[in-house]
Amino acid sequence: MSNEKIVPKTLSGMMELLPKEQLKFEQIKSTLEEVYRLYGFLPLDTPVLEASSVLLAKAGGETEKQIYRFAKGDNDMTMRFDLTVPLAKYVAKNAGELSFPFRRYQIGKVYRGERAQKGRFREFYQADIDIIGDGKLSVLNDAEIPSMIYDIFTRLGLDDFTIRINNRKILNGFYEILSLSDKSQDIMRTVDKIEKIGKEKVIAELQLLEIEKEDCEKITDFIASTSNNSEAFDKLDMYLGKNEQYDLGVSELKTVIESIAMFGVPEKNYRVDLSIARGLDYYTGTVYETTFNRHPEIGSICSGGRYDELASFYTDRHLPGVGISIGLTRLFYILSEMNYIDEAYVAPCDVMILPMIEDTSYIIGLSAKLRRMGIKTQISTEGGKMKSRLNYANRLGIPFVIFVGEDEIASGNITLKNMESGAQAQFEVDKAAEQIITYVNGKKAAKIINLK
Amino acid sequence: MSNEKIVPKTLSGMMELLPKEQLKFEQIKSTLEEVYRLYGFLPLDTPVLEASSVLLAKAGGETEKQIYRFAKGDNDMTMRFDLTVPLAKYVAKNAGELSFPFRRYQIGKVYRGERAQKGRFREFYQADIDIIGDGKLSVLNDAEIPSMIYDIFTRLGLDDFTIRINNRKILNGFYEILSLSDKSQDIMRTVDKIEKIGKEKVIAELQLLEIEKEDCEKITDFIASTSNNSEAFDKLDMYLGKNEQYDLGVSELKTVIESIAMFGVPEKNYRVDLSIARGLDYYTGTVYETTFNRHPEIGSICSGGRYDELASFYTDRHLPGVGISIGLTRLFYILSEMNYIDEAYVAPCDVMILPMIEDTSYIIGLSAKLRRMGIKTQISTEGGKMKSRLNYANRLGIPFVIFVGEDEIASGNITLKNMESGAQAQFEVDKAAEQIITYVNGKKAAKIINLK
Repeated sequence: MSNEKIVPKTLSGMMELLPKEQLKFEQIKSTLEEVYRLYGFLPLDTPVLEASSVLLAKAGGETEKQIYRFAKGDNDMTMRFDLTVPLAKYVAKNAGELSFPFRRYQIGKVYRGERAQKGRFREFYQADIDIIGDGKLSVLNDAEIPSMIYDIFTRLGLDDFTIRINNRKILNGFYEILSLSDKSQDIMRTVDKIEKIGKEKVIAELQLLEIEKEDCEKITDFIASTSNNSEAFDKLDMYLGKNEQYDLGVSELKTVIESIAMFGVPEKNYRVDLSIARGLDYYTGTVYETTFNRHPEIGSICSGGRYDELASFYTDRHLPGVGISIGLTRLFYILSEMNYIDEAYVAPCDVMILPMIEDTSYIIGLSAKLRRMGIKTQISTEGGKMKSRLNYANRLGIPFVIFVGEDEIASGNITLKNMESGAQAQFEVDKAAEQIITYVNGKKAAKIINLK
Repeated sequence: MSNEKIVPKTLSGMMELLPKEQLKFEQIKSTLEEVYRLYGFLPLDTPVLEASSVLLAKAGGETEKQIYRFAKGDNDMTMRFDLTVPLAKYVAKNAGELSFPFRRYQIGKVYRGERAQKGRFREFYQADIDIIGDGKLSVLNDAEIPSMIYDIFTRLGLDDFTIRINNRKILNGFYEILSLSDKSQDIMRTVDKIEKIGKEKVIAELQLLEIEKEDCEKITDFIASTSNNSEAFDKLDMYLGKNEQYDLGVSELKTVIESIAMFGVPEKNYRVDLSIARGLDYYTGTVYETTFNRHPEIGSICSGGRYDELASFYTDRHLPGVGISIGLTRLFYILSEMNYIDEAYVAPCDVMILPMIEDTSYIIGLSAKLRRMGIKTQISTEGGKMKSRLNYANRLGIPFVIFVGEDEIASGNITLKNMESGAQAQFEVDKAAEQIITYVNGKKAAKIINLK
């Protein structure tokens, strides 16, 4: 074998975590899955590779530049760049076999060949939930989705967030009322900058679009934030009766906001925000963004909305839906950078058994017994000095070590060492197991994220 | 928008499941993860895309033909074709940060551009576990890994299997004793066919390799199956003292077999099988294969072994390990084809709430309450006829429906319908929840696989 070694590098833009970080990531991912399942969502797992003709049915310009596309044999293939297009394909393909409303979640890796830079990923997890109706879908679903997001974030310990909600019908109707529909895309792009550049500069830019000063004021007043939801509805009520679409949007938004409260979400965690529009063309009703109150600079960590046609590129069937997406890799990266996940329980196992004798039969039996009790157990197999073996447990953050020697085998008890406190004493196996379980349950009940 | 639709097809060779099948798959996957974690294995998640130079360090011929490789910008990239090479890269790259023995599992998709045919996949899950030592690794680990496999298969309900165990040192030593080392690769390839073509034909083929008739007999006698492990060791003992490697192999195999018993694995589920060699060159000690007793034609569903050098292409560091891999997609495909997973609990939720009134506030509160109790709950949101709404629950296999109408709201009770028995009665919410939980716990405790 040659002695020339190949450098074991990982491609840039790929998140590859060390064990402790990986365990934190897994815990966040499991929390998402647990809540998704509680709400009756089905896990879905579509291929990473799809036919380019299918995946790029709808794509254009920017998307095409960023994709990973290649040919093999007769196949022109593309790695999925989101989970929405594969969902559309799946639902169109299997519509006859599915029951609607079809509620699915998918947590999977997607690929975008973006320019690599800190905090930008080329392979990253998205966690999507969508509810797809057949021809129609009640607006109650638009309220259930942010309620799930609330459940997820609070379970994680991340309670200082705001789900911002708007309705595209309101925006479309509003610009119709002002006879500015033809400019609405440009207007939305401009007003989106209001938090960065301020109201005066936005008005100046709007005037460049040949919009009357008076209308510019109306627009910036309309999208300006309100101190609470009831104030927002007061403002919305002022334009009622002038435009059908607008009125419908306001009515939908009212239902959504009222229903979210019924789901038990505290008012501090959701807010009507008439400045939210979402870039994507295909949202047609409710739209959501979610921000950390203490880190608005991050932008939205969880966005989505209501769309009328999920799969119009594949089928004539009218499939409206509502969904939301969490950029899980990016969210994890941000939380880690801010040291918000430092206190998570990241031991690979709950206890390590350290034999002080040659005979392994008692040790092996003990490991089997502890595992049957649900205790994550590892046997220290490599011998060596006691100190280095305890160091191993310490480095991995294993909270307990069990010693078994002649004494222990004779008495049938074991010696349990709490690695945190250093306390060490003999116990019956069941009593030791109880202590371990109590400790671990405490760790599991603790929130993973700890805002500082 | 154009009316020409794109056919929503999925590429051939990709497993894409309908909801019920997906739920079965997820349950099997979770069982694997649960047991891996109980044994103190860390989850690892390496990128699907790696630099071609890294991934193909060791590959040649067949592998290169089957891979998905492409360039984007300055990067020459390949989709991983197994989880072992990425593990080697990871361990070599991060050796300074890891604690050894390093115990990791990875369940992930891998890619091979094989010719598409029934039961062959181009994108499929592998579920790998490996224990990597730094310079050395106790043979006790070689026993722990098949014990985990036993735990996994029995938890799933698949108890009619045999883990076949051999040791490459025994085979290498044996062929040295016969002075046939230079022909050992050819011999192993030939004797591998013994179950298909029979002993006589194997001997005939061996003679073509210019091996004396007497040696051919010795070889076929040696690899012939024995009725139990003690008989196998009697046969192994006959050659002891002639070759150091052989003796070491026998001693390792004895330790492994004895330790597996200590882990509580019944003797019917593991067996010394001297015909097992494993194709890969890099196994150097213990080797495993696992077969269904009633379906030997499937071949091994779980294979692996001990290797001396995990990462010699990337580092001089001596990293011996032992591991095993389950071809999860293929296993699932086989179990499904045989209708062995038909009775799994595959409801997307445990209960559907069916409102018979307009006002949703009570319904929403009830859904939140049930979910807090851990009951997977869905609200029927779309209205329509009672019959079609119950059909929806039936098609999805949802076991309970709760009706809420004026009566129920007035009394504070709900009407619970058991969809299986058709029984329907009014209960307090807590009593209804209890019934649902009892039913679901029963379903969860049942094994997923039911051999017929």
